[in-house]
Amino acid sequence: METKGHSRHFLYTDWILTETQFDPDQLHSKETVFTIGNGYLGTRGSFEEGYPHALSATFIHGVYDDVPVVYTELVNCPDWLPLVAIVNGERLRLDQGEILQYERKLNLRQGLLSRSLRWRSPSGKTIDFYFERFVSFADQHVLAQRCQLTPVDFDGVIEVQGSINGYTENQGFNHWEGLDQGKTDEGIWLQRRTRNSQIELGMAAKMTISGAQASLQVSTAPGYPTLSMTFLAQAQQTVTVEKLVTVFTSRDIETPVAAAREKLACLPDYAKLLKASEQAWDEVWQQSDIVIEGDSTAAFAVRYNLFGLLIASPRDDEKVSIPAKTLSGFGYRGHIFWDTEIFMLPFFLFTQPAIARNLLSYRWHTLPGARRKASHYRYKGAMFSWESAATGDEVTPRWSLPTDFYGEDVRIWCRDREIHINADIPYAVWNYWQATANDEWMQKYGAEIILDAAIFWGSRVEFNPERQKYEIREVIGTDEYHEFVHNNIFTNRMVQWHLEKAIAVYDWLAHKYPERAKELEEKLQLTSEQQNHWQDIIAKILLFYDPSTELIEQFEGFFQLEDINLADSQGRDRSMQAILGIDKTNKYQVLKQPDVLMLLYLMRGSADFPYSEKALQTNWDYYAPRTDITYGSSLGPAVHAILASDLNISNEAYKLFMQAAMVDLEDNRGNTADGIHGATAGGVWQAVIFGFGGIQFAENRPVAKPHLPPNWTRLKFKLHWQGLWYDFDLHQEVGMGHGAEGQGGRGAGEQGGRGAEENNNSSLLTPNSSLLTPNSSLQTPNSSLNTPNIQGVIFDLDGVLTDTAELHYLAWQKLADEEGIPFNRVANEALRGVSRRASLMLIIGHRPYSEEQIQEMMERKNRYYVELLKNMTSKDLLPGAIALLDELRQAGIKIGIGSASKNARTVIERLGIADKVDAIADGYSVQQPKPAPDLFLYAAKQLGIEPAQSVVVEDAAAGVEAALAAGMWAVGIGPVERVGAAHVVLPSLAGVKWADIRSQLQK
Amino acid sequence: METKGHSRHFLYTDWILTETQFDPDQLHSKETVFTIGNGYLGTRGSFEEGYPHALSATFIHGVYDDVPVVYTELVNCPDWLPLVAIVNGERLRLDQGEILQYERKLNLRQGLLSRSLRWRSPSGKTIDFYFERFVSFADQHVLAQRCQLTPVDFDGVIEVQGSINGYTENQGFNHWEGLDQGKTDEGIWLQRRTRNSQIELGMAAKMTISGAQASLQVSTAPGYPTLSMTFLAQAQQTVTVEKLVTVFTSRDIETPVAAAREKLACLPDYAKLLKASEQAWDEVWQQSDIVIEGDSTAAFAVRYNLFGLLIASPRDDEKVSIPAKTLSGFGYRGHIFWDTEIFMLPFFLFTQPAIARNLLSYRWHTLPGARRKASHYRYKGAMFSWESAATGDEVTPRWSLPTDFYGEDVRIWCRDREIHINADIPYAVWNYWQATANDEWMQKYGAEIILDAAIFWGSRVEFNPERQKYEIREVIGTDEYHEFVHNNIFTNRMVQWHLEKAIAVYDWLAHKYPERAKELEEKLQLTSEQQNHWQDIIAKILLFYDPSTELIEQFEGFFQLEDINLADSQGRDRSMQAILGIDKTNKYQVLKQPDVLMLLYLMRGSADFPYSEKALQTNWDYYAPRTDITYGSSLGPAVHAILASDLNISNEAYKLFMQAAMVDLEDNRGNTADGIHGATAGGVWQAVIFGFGGIQFAENRPVAKPHLPPNWTRLKFKLHWQGLWYDFDLHQEVGMGHGAEGQGGRGAGEQGGRGAEENNNSSLLTPNSSLLTPNSSLQTPNSSLNTPNIQGVIFDLDGVLTDTAELHYLAWQKLADEEGIPFNRVANEALRGVSRRASLMLIIGHRPYSEEQIQEMMERKNRYYVELLKNMTSKDLLPGAIALLDELRQAGIKIGIGSASKNARTVIERLGIADKVDAIADGYSVQQPKPAPDLFLYAAKQLGIEPAQSVVVEDAAAGVEAALAAGMWAVGIGPVERVGAAHVVLPSLAGVKWADIRSQLQK
Repeated sequence: METKGHSRHFLYTDWILTETQFDPDQLHSKETVFTIGNGYLGTRGSFEEGYPHALSATFIHGVYDDVPVVYTELVNCPDWLPLVAIVNGERLRLDQGEILQYERKLNLRQGLLSRSLRWRSPSGKTIDFYFERFVSFADQHVLAQRCQLTPVDFDGVIEVQGSINGYTENQGFNHWEGLDQGKTDEGIWLQRRTRNSQIELGMAAKMTISGAQASLQVSTAPGYPTLSMTFLAQAQQTVTVEKLVTVFTSRDIETPVAAAREKLACLPDYAKLLKASEQAWDEVWQQSDIVIEGDSTAAFAVRYNLFGLLIASPRDDEKVSIPAKTLSGFGYRGHIFWDTEIFMLPFFLFTQPAIARNLLSYRWHTLPGARRKASHYRYKGAMFSWESAATGDEVTPRWSLPTDFYGEDVRIWCRDREIHINADIPYAVWNYWQATANDEWMQKYGAEIILDAAIFWGSRVEFNPERQKYEIREVIGTDEYHEFVHNNIFTNRMVQWHLEKAIAVYDWLAHKYPERAKELEEKLQLTSEQQNHWQDIIAKILLFYDPSTELIEQFEGFFQLEDINLADSQGRDRSMQAILGIDKTNKYQVLKQPDVLMLLYLMRGSADFPYSEKALQTNWDYYAPRTDITYGSSLGPAVHAILASDLNISNEAYKLFMQAAMVDLEDNRGNTADGIHGATAGGVWQAVIFGFGGIQFAENRPVAKPHLPPNWTRLKFKLHWQGLWYDFDLHQEVGMGHGAEGQGGRGAGEQGGRGAEENNNSSLLTPNSSLLTPNSSLQTPNSSLNTPNIQGVIFDLDGVLTDTAELHYLAWQKLADEEGIPFNRVANEALRGVSRRASLMLIIGHRPYSEEQIQEMMERKNRYYVELLKNMTSKDLLPGAIALLDELRQAGIKIGIGSASKNARTVIERLGIADKVDAIADGYSVQQPKPAPDLFLYAAKQLGIEPAQSVVVEDAAAGVEAALAAGMWAVGIGPVERVGAAHVVLPSLAGVKWADIRSQLQK
Repeated sequence: METKGHSRHFLYTDWILTETQFDPDQLHSKETVFTIGNGYLGTRGSFEEGYPHALSATFIHGVYDDVPVVYTELVNCPDWLPLVAIVNGERLRLDQGEILQYERKLNLRQGLLSRSLRWRSPSGKTIDFYFERFVSFADQHVLAQRCQLTPVDFDGVIEVQGSINGYTENQGFNHWEGLDQGKTDEGIWLQRRTRNSQIELGMAAKMTISGAQASLQVSTAPGYPTLSMTFLAQAQQTVTVEKLVTVFTSRDIETPVAAAREKLACLPDYAKLLKASEQAWDEVWQQSDIVIEGDSTAAFAVRYNLFGLLIASPRDDEKVSIPAKTLSGFGYRGHIFWDTEIFMLPFFLFTQPAIARNLLSYRWHTLPGARRKASHYRYKGAMFSWESAATGDEVTPRWSLPTDFYGEDVRIWCRDREIHINADIPYAVWNYWQATANDEWMQKYGAEIILDAAIFWGSRVEFNPERQKYEIREVIGTDEYHEFVHNNIFTNRMVQWHLEKAIAVYDWLAHKYPERAKELEEKLQLTSEQQNHWQDIIAKILLFYDPSTELIEQFEGFFQLEDINLADSQGRDRSMQAILGIDKTNKYQVLKQPDVLMLLYLMRGSADFPYSEKALQTNWDYYAPRTDITYGSSLGPAVHAILASDLNISNEAYKLFMQAAMVDLEDNRGNTADGIHGATAGGVWQAVIFGFGGIQFAENRPVAKPHLPPNWTRLKFKLHWQGLWYDFDLHQEVGMGHGAEGQGGRGAGEQGGRGAEENNNSSLLTPNSSLLTPNSSLQTPNSSLNTPNIQGVIFDLDGVLTDTAELHYLAWQKLADEEGIPFNRVANEALRGVSRRASLMLIIGHRPYSEEQIQEMMERKNRYYVELLKNMTSKDLLPGAIALLDELRQAGIKIGIGSASKNARTVIERLGIADKVDAIADGYSVQQPKPAPDLFLYAAKQLGIEPAQSVVVEDAAAGVEAALAAGMWAVGIGPVERVGAAHVVLPSLAGVKWADIRSQLQK
């Protein structure tokens, strides 16, 4: 019962993420979650004092360097964070001593990361720390830290060391060679250069102190310059140390060290810097914020996702773009994918158009690399790289190399075959142009991208004389579970669309900018034959499509593959590819991510072929159940959420949306350690705006046709369209079903349309022909509705609604200290899920205690525990708990507690949920403990419902067993290994809706 | 004339290598050359104060860690060298300020590396440094440094920082994670652990000072603990700092840090430690030294090669072996090849048998890895890995990956196909047993290796029913220019030999150690069928051999490949594979290294099939001209030298021998930077002992049948054979031709045989059958003898016999200083090969000087230069010069000097060669400078010989041109790009014999 489950120890308020407990097991994912940045650089949320195996990292846009196998990677820059306190000779380190209080906060509005800490050193000194840090949003070269130290119970000598660590690494690899370093009147500086790309970096730092007299020392260990201040600290008196850092690279300026030193010399103080940064943040949020009311988790999560995009978006640099994992982790080595254009770009396009322009200009600057790639593969024009970095050359690794001596290498074919990106980028360019009407940029940058990428297609398609059709063979579509497929619909239709637009762009250019048209004609060798060829391809490209049902075949032969029932694999914790292997997924009708549905989504805005409501319904019914949406691609859920919203399956839409929105906050794919899911974050914005907000661009302006989730009472945001800002403030009366009121205000309050008319702007360019699918037998998912009639839900307490593991630990620690028995957090690990008596036995070991003494100690420990319980508040509720309880009450479902704890009532009161609970079964209620059914049967009886009408929510295996023994429905919280016997398994209650549970139980 | 050519700035005396000048271009190769070690670790000869791009490294045996692509590598351990002086705020660094004097010495007898330095700081302070370091040969965990500082022209504050640098790397990769570090009363310590293999390392250091009062400070930058001493230094007073370091790993002891700290606390002082280490070295040299008289270069070079082996040989560890590049560089990642058993082992076997036993025991300990490899490839028994590390598993990289984005990966097949190592290791085991008669080791270790490796062959061979023969198909022989060949003679015959020995070993074991035999029978599943199968393979394995000519075909179809004339590619600077590509070398009769000849060499000692004098002659004539001996494998020259010696082609033998012996001293393959050529070093020992010493094991003891090179007057060494020591002291009267007197003394002076009888111990196991070669047309090399009648040699002076570039620089510097014109070494680079006047013009630039002033300055500079010339001594002769002059005089060849310098006579006198020179043509002799022929014609006239009887030795293009214009023979010293027009091109005179020049001129 003292197990923690997958709790993230997070509290969400409007703008602030609070971590209430430090869990070393989540070290790396939390470092990602607490990343800060300013569009120039990103710094992971690692501790100032370090921690064993921490993955501290600062990434600066565009600073790439060579590395074996994956060609190039975004370099981990010198670390500006080290700020270490040595208290009476004992260095602050959280893996030693004792953490008495801990709280880490990220303030999204200010871009400020802070941490409060009460630490007891190994020798018993207690001291409070308060750390703050930010990277200036007002001046991207300025980084700042503050540390406040307050001895609690001692006077003593404290030394604070602030360093620049030049020995950072990318998974062991150190990209930097030392050039020089030194000390000046202001502080220290370091000059390094990347080994191969020869990018020079200069970093400088200074440190000030207030509240104590300190002597400053400078040490210059090579690569690790350090400022050190030593002072006499007095109990209960606070000393503040501030460290300011500046950084430049040779990408910015010719002499980075000189620039860093000069800027450092002229900096105002910490407070002024923070204020300037906050103001800059404020301006950005004015445009980009989304307000959600009625769903505090979603409200925070959406902002969190936007924050993740904003800190990584280049505001002053058009030669870089946002990597798949942004600037927050080592995943994908800082390479840039279609993720940016298709998933992230719309957010910028409609709220920060200047950033959108930078991102697309990056593609223009990397055209030479795309041309080299085309030329290498013996094609023409520009062939954009699947993974791109500084130059645009292809940097997708060729091999996935085994680490064991005899393992086989796996060839990665995306670099050669996943070519749809060559239409995705033009798609984004076109949309940028539509949304901004920026003709100047279009003629200079966009047109060349669209045209040269179109030239590539002319050389890539093959004409099949037998079919009299153009084909594109041996590709990988967006669904990467199938390799070397022919005539993937996503690819073929996007090529068709792209060529249509290429002709339109060329016509526009020739008309409006004839000189530029001429210039490009010569540069790209554009001819009228070329355009005739494009027209011919548009007319004759192969698209597998059944006009009667509007069912689309993902690629030639997909329907002939073996079918698979994904429901059979429920409860899995990894992708279908990991389970089946790539050879097998190639043979099954299982998708990593939307492909046909993705195409429908991209064509939805313009309602171009093949988009129609019928096509959406038909293909959703076919493909959604076959898509590995939980562990396939993280690109899937947000897009599915939008389409589900369109289809009015709101519960499904909301569930998929929350799956996307919580991807990093809940680490629900287990890979947040690798960095923020940038594409998911972009998808979340699209799901809110285009899905729930129902924004469409009718009559050449954004119009809302909202489908707000049931509990959202308000959705408020701004959109930028062709030079004007549109305000949307959508409201919904809770409990009134799915209707919602939509208001769109333009500019200074001009009224937009309420709701929106049907979009009649049907495509002018519907293809002339479509082939009947060879095997179009449609298979609908098995959805026999055998709904259980649920009347009540009985919650286990500890591990489900709250987590008292920490309190138990503190109580045991106090007892052990009093008895003089060595005990610490490590020893405490052995007590997880162990009864009170057995725990005590483990603690006392072979020490001779009488049974009487043992009884006394058990009571004593419990007394301490109950005392600690008094400090509990509603903040100690686990994420999602309160929302679910409220929802259940609104739905008229009864709520019971079934806890073996004798303190259950105290806990319930302290948590402030006593008024939400209809019955309590606790440690006094029955004789037989779980897994006997007694406790839950007792609770059901109190609630006045039958076992078959009851759902039990449990986090322990014994609890699930007890529920099943009672003949009740069981929802397991936690890993499948533990609660897999339950009817439904959830990682936690965060974002969980009653409707979801109910619909899952129906299956 | 002031160009340096490829000079290494080396002087060789009995035991001491002296580097007279620091050349940053040779930084990495010199770091390799000056490696020291003690069989536990090796430390490259990098500077204490560092240098930009230095490859400082310390490798400890057995400390491997994972790395991508190449699986595992020997880890660069924390660096114990940093010892940095900061003189009045200026840090000693040789890339700044000015080097006024420089000398680095390696004393092989003591294992002591030292460096004298006079440095002028950028601000003009001059200071003398004398550094020493050694790694104790008496206690392998103890490392020591000493630095003496003497201000020359100032009093000032000096800080000396001694650190342990934990941020060492392997080509950018840092294998270490920090665990802890600290300071104690004694000094500092560092605790690190390898990332994956989890080997813990503890290092501790302390520092003492004498000659000044200093304050000690300790700084603890993470990963870079530093001891710092600051003192007031006075001009002309010497201060001495000594730094002692201890190191342990968890391979040695459970608590490495504690062990390092404890040992450090109890260490005696530097002087005592050095004395103990010297005594330990002395004992080793007592057994392993070789004395050569009459050829000081060879005498030193041989000792240098033995030193390279001794510092890398594990004396107390039987779970490690010597990597291909020893413990001295990053090449081949510390992997272990057949190089150890076949090339290095004999040296140890006959002079340090306990080390030989350790090396072979390593193979026994790694049998589990060899079995895993066999099992992976679905074979039986033990399949030893082509590249092996800690576990014996195969660690040859599978791919050679391109660094550019579109380059193709090249598959490395050695891991799968180069299987002859599986017989090479048993060959070494058998020889160890023969030489030591160590039955105890054989029954416990050796037998299992031989038998389980034999079991592999039983599963690897294929029976061809049509031929009624066993075949081994698709292998790579020792000649790696041919892949996937069938029935490579080296492999097939070694397998046959191995199976013969396996049967013999098994019989012996069953007879002498029946219990062990039974144990192995069960463990290895040895059966009598197995042995019958071996017998059958021995009888029927396919060997392509022509009994009439005794010509052997390297593999099936080799003679049908296209022939190639390597002479056509003379003057190349890379391998034939680099020139042709692997696909082409596969199709030509060109060898990377001896294959048939290698087999003959391995069978030579026992005169087993196919060895015979006739076979040797026939196959030498065929294969030697087809072998890429210069740039193919470095394994080739020593083996060819031995066989050439057997064939009485002494000049060729000596030339090949020196090619091997100088491989690292001269960096003649350009890859010394990667580490010492361990196999070549072992080959050098074999060439001296088995080639020139002619050692054979007749009548069960070593007997000498020497073929000493012409100039060797004495060759003295010891051999250990079956428990007894044999002393050899071979003499030769110079000028008496190739005969030599051999003396072998056993034990305490017992007489061995003089010379040796013919070895009549013909093989009992000659194979029953041999196939006629399909295409046995023999091609002899073209050797028409058209000897020129050479009567005299005319040497250019500067760049050939000596190098005055440094003196010119110093003279120009003095002039420039006096004129207040900025000038330094960098500016001096522009003056190479530029005349005095033109040099001056470059220096003064646009400054307005009258012609009179220019004349004066030219004279002034020359005056300074002539003054500096007075300091020249015979030490300033370039390597090889004096030996060649002496040899020419003995051969009655006249010697002239042809130098454009007006100071030639002064230089000749200072160099002490005036009495060796018959005529001098200098800057006063003729009007027309080179490339006019006048100067050399003048010299020839003085010598009284005809141009056609004259050889000119020149290092400048104009000089070669002059020689040719004079109708003389030209020998060019330096790169082909410069002196390629000459008849013969040599990198330098080091090791050059008159006979070689003559024989080359004959071609």
